[in-house]
Amino acid sequence: MKKEIEPTTSIYPLPVIMVTTHDEKGNDNIMTAAWTTNISSERPSIGIIMGGNSLSFKNIKQTRDFIINIPGQGLLKEIDFCGENHGNKIDKFKETGLTKIEASIIGSKLIAECPINFECRLRDIYPMDSANLIVGEVVKVHMDENILTDEGKVDFFKLNPVVYSQKTYYSIKEGVAIRGFSGKK
Amino acid sequence: MKKEIEPTTSIYPLPVIMVTTHDEKGNDNIMTAAWTTNISSERPSIGIIMGGNSLSFKNIKQTRDFIINIPGQGLLKEIDFCGENHGNKIDKFKETGLTKIEASIIGSKLIAECPINFECRLRDIYPMDSANLIVGEVVKVHMDENILTDEGKVDFFKLNPVVYSQKTYYSIKEGVAIRGFSGKK
Repeated sequence: MKKEIEPTTSIYPLPVIMVTTHDEKGNDNIMTAAWTTNISSERPSIGIIMGGNSLSFKNIKQTRDFIINIPGQGLLKEIDFCGENHGNKIDKFKETGLTKIEASIIGSKLIAECPINFECRLRDIYPMDSANLIVGEVVKVHMDENILTDEGKVDFFKLNPVVYSQKTYYSIKEGVAIRGFSGKK
Repeated sequence: MKKEIEPTTSIYPLPVIMVTTHDEKGNDNIMTAAWTTNISSERPSIGIIMGGNSLSFKNIKQTRDFIINIPGQGLLKEIDFCGENHGNKIDKFKETGLTKIEASIIGSKLIAECPINFECRLRDIYPMDSANLIVGEVVKVHMDENILTDEGKVDFFKLNPVVYSQKTYYSIKEGVAIRGFSGKK
């Protein structure tokens, strides 16, 4: 039996990412986000929803670049901390002890402990009510060699990503099927 | 040791959804997608990336509504089938045996077997290279009573959602932490 409820927004679940940005003076920040998706494979681009008052949004408007860092389950505490605290009050790299590495192309810093990092240049900002969709073009990707298979692909369980839904962080259980198993008509 | 690779688009992992649409003549279609995210909670909205040549995109442009249906693991075969096949050749409701139900407000049909359905009115289309970001405003939500807790919240493991990455469908293992567990500064 279906029950009707009033409009709400809840795609179940969404992936947890850590976004690093910097301001013009070189101050770095880390933000945890889950409202994110791939946008284009043609000109590789990723989108993130960000509040208009967030420090990360201000940084991106100023310096027009950011990094999407994909954390594994080993960083749960840091993920949560960077989502619960504001960067205008504290230095999140310092507070978490996460290691910053210079990027290859842009000014934002990589989080060394995140096994995958996407360097992005701001492509466009789309206002969405009081938030914004930030679309970044991926200009360089970094991957830890120890999460890759011999063929150079990501070993999903070595990455061990985190997904988020209804204020809870979850882990992934198992690959249940390969795309295409149902056959084509 | 980090390895640099060329630009690619890969948020790990993304949620699997089934999108239902209809054309002006009342023909219904189902599309499987994973490039999706929440867009706004203020005016509840969801975004999906869709190829410009897809039947679902044409339908949405014509009739300006669609439904995001959230499938559970029990629908893996139907999920895969609706992702692998094109709606201009076959009737996917008929081929999969999925049950269509009239929506409350819009013309697209609910998939009865999906425990959650978001009725959406087209809010805007943003071209992204040869694809498009479709943003829909959620105007009604339907939930199966048997996936809800006594408090009316979604029981995540009764929903048992599917996530997707690198051509593989995955299931969710366990809640590993509650947001806020790291404390605030």
